[in-house]
Formats: sequence, structure tokens, C-alpha cells
Amino acid sequence: MNKYQLFTNIMKKQSFLCVGLDPDIKKIPHHLLKVNDPIFSFNKIIIDTTQEYCIAYKTNFAFYEAAGISGLISLEKTIKYIRENYPDQFIIADAKRGDVANTSKMYAYAVFNHINYDAVTINPYMGEDSIKPFLTYANKWIILLVLTSNTGSYDFQFTVVKSTGKYLFEQILNKSQNWATDEQMMYVIGAMHTKMFSSIRQIVPNHFLLVPGIGEQGGDLEAIAKYGMNNYCGLLVNSSRQIIYTDSSKKFAGIVSKEAKKLQLKMSEYLVKYLK
Amino acid sequence: MNKYQLFTNIMKKQSFLCVGLDPDIKKIPHHLLKVNDPIFSFNKIIIDTTQEYCIAYKTNFAFYEAAGISGLISLEKTIKYIRENYPDQFIIADAKRGDVANTSKMYAYAVFNHINYDAVTINPYMGEDSIKPFLTYANKWIILLVLTSNTGSYDFQFTVVKSTGKYLFEQILNKSQNWATDEQMMYVIGAMHTKMFSSIRQIVPNHFLLVPGIGEQGGDLEAIAKYGMNNYCGLLVNSSRQIIYTDSSKKFAGIVSKEAKKLQLKMSEYLVKYLK
Repeated sequence: MNKYQLFTNIMKKQSFLCVGLDPDIKKIPHHLLKVNDPIFSFNKIIIDTTQEYCIAYKTNFAFYEAAGISGLISLEKTIKYIRENYPDQFIIADAKRGDVANTSKMYAYAVFNHINYDAVTINPYMGEDSIKPFLTYANKWIILLVLTSNTGSYDFQFTVVKSTGKYLFEQILNKSQNWATDEQMMYVIGAMHTKMFSSIRQIVPNHFLLVPGIGEQGGDLEAIAKYGMNNYCGLLVNSSRQIIYTDSSKKFAGIVSKEAKKLQLKMSEYLVKYLK
Repeated sequence: MNKYQLFTNIMKKQSFLCVGLDPDIKKIPHHLLKVNDPIFSFNKIIIDTTQEYCIAYKTNFAFYEAAGISGLISLEKTIKYIRENYPDQFIIADAKRGDVANTSKMYAYAVFNHINYDAVTINPYMGEDSIKPFLTYANKWIILLVLTSNTGSYDFQFTVVKSTGKYLFEQILNKSQNWATDEQMMYVIGAMHTKMFSSIRQIVPNHFLLVPGIGEQGGDLEAIAKYGMNNYCGLLVNSSRQIIYTDSSKKFAGIVSKEAKKLQLKMSEYLVKYLK
């Protein structure tokens, strides 16, 4: 999916919501544990009840790997289900990849060719050649971790670089723009760093930002929209736990749907107010 | 496996060789493509012919994920095979993990509980809380990426930090020592950075270093031993392509074995010369 198709979907649905599919067997509604493939069944219900309100899904590999081979089968079934039933959804492999070039080439094959994701999250620490192999696929995206939504983001990401006086994460924003265009690359900026969105937009005015961490991890949606939106919206705001674990009764589907709709309605309001 | 058991194995075998099991279906001997589960069959032969000369195996997840679910089944079979037949081998999940804490918890479960690895490689960019969940398992290790064996290592790892005048990778070495002891944590230091081993040993005198990049990626084994060895050896030197793809005929097992033995003989010599 290219940038203009993504923007079109955002405007059609009046939403820039990405739903995180992080199925934890300890948290999914109990009655689903009795069915065949609880993880896929849970995902399917979440997808069917949220697809109207979101434009993207993000699957976090950890939650599938923890369930072993059967979890990975559920993962592949989930992506196939979205592709076949909701082809307009943008699908993100949240796998935080990045390795030496010949290894990154294999990871890229796995996520883009084998599973057919639209995008994959990448850790920038290993530099340009670890990222290049992911950029050889047409209409596929990398999403570079820049400023993450955890307290550990303060350990190294805010390190001040001697030669420029800038933060390390700003140096990554600057340097990575030589590697790929804003039609191939997005950035992860955690919602908890609300105050940084304005200065980040000065460095990367045109790129999409994937914003995790609203809800449980804190983060103010309106401020993100106000300071982060550009003229292609430029935001994918992810919510995982706040939506998918909002209820665990047999009626969870209706409640999950309401939660997603609540976020979509806010986003619709902010698109009117803040779209450049 | 704890640090003392690892050192005992090194001294017994007079080797600090780690063999990288990176099975690329395009590179493994053609005659193996006809058998059931070529990836596992290839690995099994590599393991049987090298186990005498090495003390560790490292599986790079990318090469298994690229083959889809069947690749991951081959991966699990491989680890089980090593555990059952060569219980003294130290087994590393080269997966370059690291995510927000609740996600890292799931990754840790996947590699230590579900698959029973001894160690996992971790990317430090997301900081302390992304690493902590991996440290809750007894006798398991994290191996932090510090200075990698690719040209991209020059993009950010050598960034000079304003407050200390040190390189970013040195700051990571310093800071991470507050997170875990040298009985839980190792560091990845690429062989191409031979000149840095001496100063790295001043910062982390007691930790094990996992050193990839001898052979195809360049890197001088004797210099690494000379400047990197400490009084527990403190080195695991990895070789993947140089050993496992040294030949692709039906006689590859014998040639692979010779290649591993050649490295072991050198290591034996360096243990005599450089062990502190």
C-alpha cells in the first residue's frame, strides 16, 4: 500500500487508528479457550468488530512466539484473514528486526514475501546496511524505532551527541532520511513523549509516525494530533490493551467495538481540527 | 549453564568456538533438498561433525523464519537434538530481541521456557526495562548488542556522547553493568573492530564477549584472543558461513569437520598463549 492509498483510507474512515493484536492466552476471554485455535478466534472477533473504525492492524510477534509453533500458525491465519476480508487494512509486523545485511535479507523475505505484511518495525542501532534489504520491496514500508513508549527510552535515546548538540533519536531521524523516502519509511514515536512531537515534525515534516502508548502507557491523543498531524495526516495511533482487553465476558465483542468507535470519533474530530 | 560450567567446557575442549547454524535453502548441499526436512537434516550433520570442536551453537532466527512454519519446526527440532545429544553445548538464540517490558516478557518466555535456549541476543536501544524481563530466569543469559560486525556499526555506535566524550557503545557497556552481572550478561563485539578489544576489556574485564564476523566478514582471531581474553577465557567466537558453507558436495560433512577442527586448533594454541 502506498502513502496516498493510506491517506485515502484515513479520510474515508475518518480514522488513523491502528489496532494492536497482542493475544495473551492469560487475558483473552475464558470461553474462547475451549474453541479450536483460541488465539485466531480471539483475533478474528477483534478484527470483525474493529475493522470499521481502524485503518491498520499491528501484530506483535512476541505474543505469538510465546505460544510456540501453534501461535505462529495463528499469526499467519490472522494475516490471511485480514488480507482476504479487509484488503484496505494496512498490516504491520511489529517484530523490531534489524541485523547484518545477509540476515536482514532473510527477515525481509519472511515478513514481506512469506507473510505479505505491508510494514515491519526496525531497530536502527545496527545502521544503514541492516535496513537496506527491507527497502527492496515495492510498496512495502519500514518503521524505524526512534523514540519508544517505555521508561527505558530515557537510557540512550536522549543521549546528547557531542558534534551536533542534538539527541541521539534526532540524529537517527536526520541520518535515516538519506536511506529511504517518506513513501517507504515511517518512525515510531511513543505517545508518552507528547512534548517532542512539535520539534520532531520540524525534522520530519512529511513522514508517517506510528504512535504506540496511548491508553495504558499514558499519552494524550489530542496533543499528538495537534502537534503531530501533517497534510497527509501522518499519524497511525496504535492501541492494543486499551481496546482488546477492555472486557473479558462473553459480550466482549460489543464492548471492544464501542471502545474502538470512541477512539475513531475523537480522531474524526481531530482530523477536522488539525489536518494541515 | 553458568559461567563456570561454560569455562570448564572451554578448557575441556580447548575451544571457544561457537558454530552459527544459519541454514539457507539456497546454499545447503543439493542432495539434502530431496530428504524430509532439509534444514534439520543439514543442521544435524553440521552439529554431529562439529560438536567435538565447539562449545556453543547459535541459531539465527531469520534463516528459519524465511522458511515459514516448517522452518520454525526445524528450528525447534534442532535445539531439541542438541539438548538431547550434546547437553554440554551452550545454545544461543540469535534473535536480537528487545521491546517494551510486557512484550519482552513474552519474548523471554518464548526463548527460555518454550524453546529452552541458554542465551538470547538483545538490542539495547530501548533501555533497561526492555531487558529486565529476560533476567528473571536462573542460569540464562542475555547477550547485548554493543559493537556489531557490519559497516552500519559506524552509523550510531561510534557517536560521541557530549557529557562523557565516550562513544555510544562505551556508554552502553558502562550503563548496562548496573542492570546485570557478568554471570547473566555477555556483549556482542564484532570481530572487525579488533582494535577496540583492548579498551573494551578495560570497561568490562570480566564479561564474556560473543564475537561474530571472523571469516567472511574479516576479523583476526589471534588479535581477538590476545586483546579480548580474560581469566575465564571470556570469548565465544562465532563462525557461520566460513564453516557451514565451506563445501556443498556429498562429502561436505568431512570438510566442515576439518574447518571446525582448524579453528579449534588455533584456539587451543591461543588459550595457552593468552589466557590470563
